[in-house]
Amino acid sequence: MLRTLYFDTNTGELVIIDQTRLPGELVYKRISAPRDLFESIKTLALRGAPAIGVGAALGLYACALRIEDVTPQGFEYSFEKLCAFIASSRPTARDLFYACDRMISAARRGVSVSEKIKLLRAEAFALEAENISVCHAIGEYGEKLIPENATVLTHCNAGSLCAVEYGTALAPIYEAAARKKNVRVVSDETRPLLQGARLTCYELCAAGIDTTLICDNMAAGLMAAGKIDLAIVGCDRVASNGDFANKTGTLSVAVNCAYFGIPFYVAAPSSTIDKSIPDGSHITIEHRAAEEVTENFYSHRMAPLDVKVYNPAFDVTPASLVTGYITEKGVFKNTEISEFI
Amino acid sequence: MLRTLYFDTNTGELVIIDQTRLPGELVYKRISAPRDLFESIKTLALRGAPAIGVGAALGLYACALRIEDVTPQGFEYSFEKLCAFIASSRPTARDLFYACDRMISAARRGVSVSEKIKLLRAEAFALEAENISVCHAIGEYGEKLIPENATVLTHCNAGSLCAVEYGTALAPIYEAAARKKNVRVVSDETRPLLQGARLTCYELCAAGIDTTLICDNMAAGLMAAGKIDLAIVGCDRVASNGDFANKTGTLSVAVNCAYFGIPFYVAAPSSTIDKSIPDGSHITIEHRAAEEVTENFYSHRMAPLDVKVYNPAFDVTPASLVTGYITEKGVFKNTEISEFI
Repeated sequence: MLRTLYFDTNTGELVIIDQTRLPGELVYKRISAPRDLFESIKTLALRGAPAIGVGAALGLYACALRIEDVTPQGFEYSFEKLCAFIASSRPTARDLFYACDRMISAARRGVSVSEKIKLLRAEAFALEAENISVCHAIGEYGEKLIPENATVLTHCNAGSLCAVEYGTALAPIYEAAARKKNVRVVSDETRPLLQGARLTCYELCAAGIDTTLICDNMAAGLMAAGKIDLAIVGCDRVASNGDFANKTGTLSVAVNCAYFGIPFYVAAPSSTIDKSIPDGSHITIEHRAAEEVTENFYSHRMAPLDVKVYNPAFDVTPASLVTGYITEKGVFKNTEISEFI
Repeated sequence: MLRTLYFDTNTGELVIIDQTRLPGELVYKRISAPRDLFESIKTLALRGAPAIGVGAALGLYACALRIEDVTPQGFEYSFEKLCAFIASSRPTARDLFYACDRMISAARRGVSVSEKIKLLRAEAFALEAENISVCHAIGEYGEKLIPENATVLTHCNAGSLCAVEYGTALAPIYEAAARKKNVRVVSDETRPLLQGARLTCYELCAAGIDTTLICDNMAAGLMAAGKIDLAIVGCDRVASNGDFANKTGTLSVAVNCAYFGIPFYVAAPSSTIDKSIPDGSHITIEHRAAEEVTENFYSHRMAPLDVKVYNPAFDVTPASLVTGYITEKGVFKNTEISEFI
């Protein structure tokens, strides 16, 4: 299975798969400068909430190794400025802020600069290890929700490419395949940036899992035909009441699942849960460039020059449409999620 | 406003806008040979149920002018073979078969070849004139359903480019604009072939109507935000019970409208109504090439080579999700459509 990112201890650099180049070519990118880390997250070379969190932590550690300030105060000042800069790369995913906060408190715990750097290293690697175990736990809990011979619909990419390995929404599928269950996946292409077509199909095909690509608008037709047994999606942020933000189009999948009586699950590691907001209306939704919709992937114009474009990167799905939240601590109903939180 | 097609009486040719070239360039294509007519429909250079019907009729007349058989029996045999060939170009739209049937009976009514040709000319021009008046009638009935300052969601292209002029689903919008009503349109891009982005946005922007382009999966988010007042779509075929087939993704729009309590209207000229089938399960759904999804519009690969693809061109929406059918004879509720039929 693909390793989305790792820390190269010889060079002190973060190494990531450049996901803007998939499925065409598998290219790795080395990161040790703040601007590279910021741009990699902004341009989706490094994307997927958990991968952004772990990548930010390891990337911040790589950048910290290169801070020239030798006084503890100066180092801390530079590092916290650096964290604020990286945290501003994208507004929606909870993991990014969670990782930055943990790195800041780690740095503060150290007295000397060398001690701070030791603690940053430990914290970044801890975040990476936690993510791996969280994804495997989600896989084990979620696998029980997948019947033999089931077809699972997923949206966007919440697979190994959105984490360090295994992923969140695809973890139950990898686990089912590992247990020799016969499982098929239908992947929404996920316009505008086609993470489903480019990434989910790429990693599932690479893992030898039976995968069918559809345009986002075809899911309802498959549900009407009884071809979808359940849906599992990832999420970028879950509010206290269970409303959650995920890639734009997730809401439509949830509404269609409700209409056709199909179970709709959200893979939600606790790092995505934001107790600070009561409901989904408090989640900031990132809006992205019109060209993502009007130009195609290789920049040929697909719409007239004078048309207006609405291009939110995420939408918010109400808790009422969620059958269950698959977390590393078990599966919770939408009536249970607030107690779990 | 754009004229999608016309018959050039000087040359005896059908002239169409090549819709595969929009929005990039406005190119007209001249048709007088069976193979050209077949390919134009198959490749969507001539597309949109009503335009296919009228274009097929005028195209069949152009081809009929060039049938070399001089005996009435021979002419009739060649013409009916020609009609069968053209009718096989696409399986879903009712108008194509309706037009071919009318042209066949017109030819049969004539005794001599010259008389048959006269009758074919009259029938083709009658179909064209009927389509224009039907679209304007739909516009007048539908306009009353659009409140002042409303935002209308539409899917695919059922505008002037899908008919001779004015269109079906967009006719009420053109009529509202003509009556100086303030109306805004949100257009689904309509994957995989982007008829919404390329055609609906093109003709609405050309007509100076406030138009916003979204990816198909973003409509639910706009509905949740209260930004959509009603949806109007076209249709390719309506069954006796009111179930209808339209561009893939229409079903998802209908389900989302029902969930968010938004009126969902279908512009349905009687030429699209197929009394021969009881319900939507009897409508043949065309499945198209995987490359429409995996290659982008300018044939760069967007998905891995080994992924399977499901690419239906249409889906079927149950009558229960339809607020009203806007026809040239008035607006009918889903409980009334069968009597209307």
